[in-house]
Amino acid sequence: MLKVPDHQVAGHKADGGKLGPLIDESGRFYKPLQGDKRGSNEVAFYTSFTSNTKIPDHITRFFPKFYGTQLIEASDGTGMKPHMVLQDLTSDRVNPSVMDVKMGSRTWAPQSPEDYIDKCFKKDKGSTSVSLGFRLSGLQVFESKESGFWKPTKSEVKSLSTDDVRLFLKKYVSSNASDPKPDCAFASIVYGGSAGILSQLLELKAWFEDQTIYHFYSCSVLMISEKGLATNGKRPRSEIKLVDFAHVFEGNGIIDHNFLGGLCSLIKFISEILTTPEDSVADELLEDGQNSHIYSENGSVRIY
Amino acid sequence: MLKVPDHQVAGHKADGGKLGPLIDESGRFYKPLQGDKRGSNEVAFYTSFTSNTKIPDHITRFFPKFYGTQLIEASDGTGMKPHMVLQDLTSDRVNPSVMDVKMGSRTWAPQSPEDYIDKCFKKDKGSTSVSLGFRLSGLQVFESKESGFWKPTKSEVKSLSTDDVRLFLKKYVSSNASDPKPDCAFASIVYGGSAGILSQLLELKAWFEDQTIYHFYSCSVLMISEKGLATNGKRPRSEIKLVDFAHVFEGNGIIDHNFLGGLCSLIKFISEILTTPEDSVADELLEDGQNSHIYSENGSVRIY
Repeated sequence: MLKVPDHQVAGHKADGGKLGPLIDESGRFYKPLQGDKRGSNEVAFYTSFTSNTKIPDHITRFFPKFYGTQLIEASDGTGMKPHMVLQDLTSDRVNPSVMDVKMGSRTWAPQSPEDYIDKCFKKDKGSTSVSLGFRLSGLQVFESKESGFWKPTKSEVKSLSTDDVRLFLKKYVSSNASDPKPDCAFASIVYGGSAGILSQLLELKAWFEDQTIYHFYSCSVLMISEKGLATNGKRPRSEIKLVDFAHVFEGNGIIDHNFLGGLCSLIKFISEILTTPEDSVADELLEDGQNSHIYSENGSVRIY
Repeated sequence: MLKVPDHQVAGHKADGGKLGPLIDESGRFYKPLQGDKRGSNEVAFYTSFTSNTKIPDHITRFFPKFYGTQLIEASDGTGMKPHMVLQDLTSDRVNPSVMDVKMGSRTWAPQSPEDYIDKCFKKDKGSTSVSLGFRLSGLQVFESKESGFWKPTKSEVKSLSTDDVRLFLKKYVSSNASDPKPDCAFASIVYGGSAGILSQLLELKAWFEDQTIYHFYSCSVLMISEKGLATNGKRPRSEIKLVDFAHVFEGNGIIDHNFLGGLCSLIKFISEILTTPEDSVADELLEDGQNSHIYSENGSVRIY
């Protein structure tokens, strides 16, 4: 009944007899509690967040639904273990393109133990976290029924430079993701428009400018989208979700300037893909060409 | 002809035969070039910034005017030394209240040498920089002709906690700065309104969300204001200026998320002083009570 998720792009994986998350057929995602404090900390976050009446609805939609914890048979065969029961974010998707962006210039909280800070600090400096305020943790981009997904390896993703990140953010919205010159064919559909990813990131930003309840260290923005599926005049749905809350702490009246700074940086990268003329190609690649005018909100992207 | 500045609240000072900045009577501020790279880096920044046509006028006003470099007799008696000639920001002020806020969760650039990073990292963790995204470097607040300025010592300022920072930002706009319960009498005049400090910080923020020309490490926002001088119906002028550019680097197409995050945090602290009801006292303390209605823009502060 439970199986290994098809579209996981980052984190521990359950395949090959290892411990990792599982999914069922009803749209639930079972994430094993990590043995140390991290597991209980993430459960504590979901419990607090779910019951917090100060979180507006247009923000809760950016988080996976939480259904409590449950003892289930662990994927590594070590018996019944506690798992968080979460919404499976890709259960209603056909060939989803997914990108995991780990947010923040630093992935550690100031109150963390010294040795943990040292370990994170090295990783942050060795990746784009310090320079860009975020780093890519994993991605898959659907190319076609014939070639399937373009999915770089973990070690490729680990060593990305700033220019690579810019390129990969273009690949994510291209029909030729594996090509060194991505066409950005779906940039305006996926990133642009009032329901696109940029618009959602801007909504999240407005909340982060104000909220002082939580600080989200080492948390990811997950982008999920399907491309080129604009049949029956419907725009394909693109969404962002926040995931991975093992290192969330109380904000104590201070905004999460670390997450917010990285979010502003990500927003700038994406808005440049939308506004740079040579990239804004090919609404005509949409199957439903007649509706292409509703996607051409390209030039109207402004960030304030 | 040259003398030690009266209203310097942070940085190296020229008094007691040490090397520090000097001012003249025409409103110029002479800052000695630091011997290592820092001096030449700051001159390079001013030279680049002054000639950069992409900086909008409403942003250049937040920077001191730069009049080149000049050889003058150094304050420590070591002979003629090169100095940057800058605008003296307090020359036209009577009893100015001044606060120096060093911006950024980190004060070092990723490309800095390891030992310099280590040194800064310790200072950043030992102050509020890491937790708040900024730290106070110095301040003076004018109380009255009788008691003069309230000016905490360097070591007091160095050891401030988050709660102290919140308190000191209130003291900055209080008629009783030395009192443990500051009255925030001038909050709406100094911080609030369309010409107040919050509004200027928001303008700066909008620029930082977009500009990718410079990264400002270890740079300060200086707040300058006069309080209670609303004679002849004129609102006293409050302004922010950016200073200290020894660690400015090229942005290379990336926004300065480190400065921006800290700026958003500072904005949140100040907007809370303006919107928390118990703090919004005493426009009536203004000498010109008839005009107090023009200052009561308290409730209308929104950040987006």
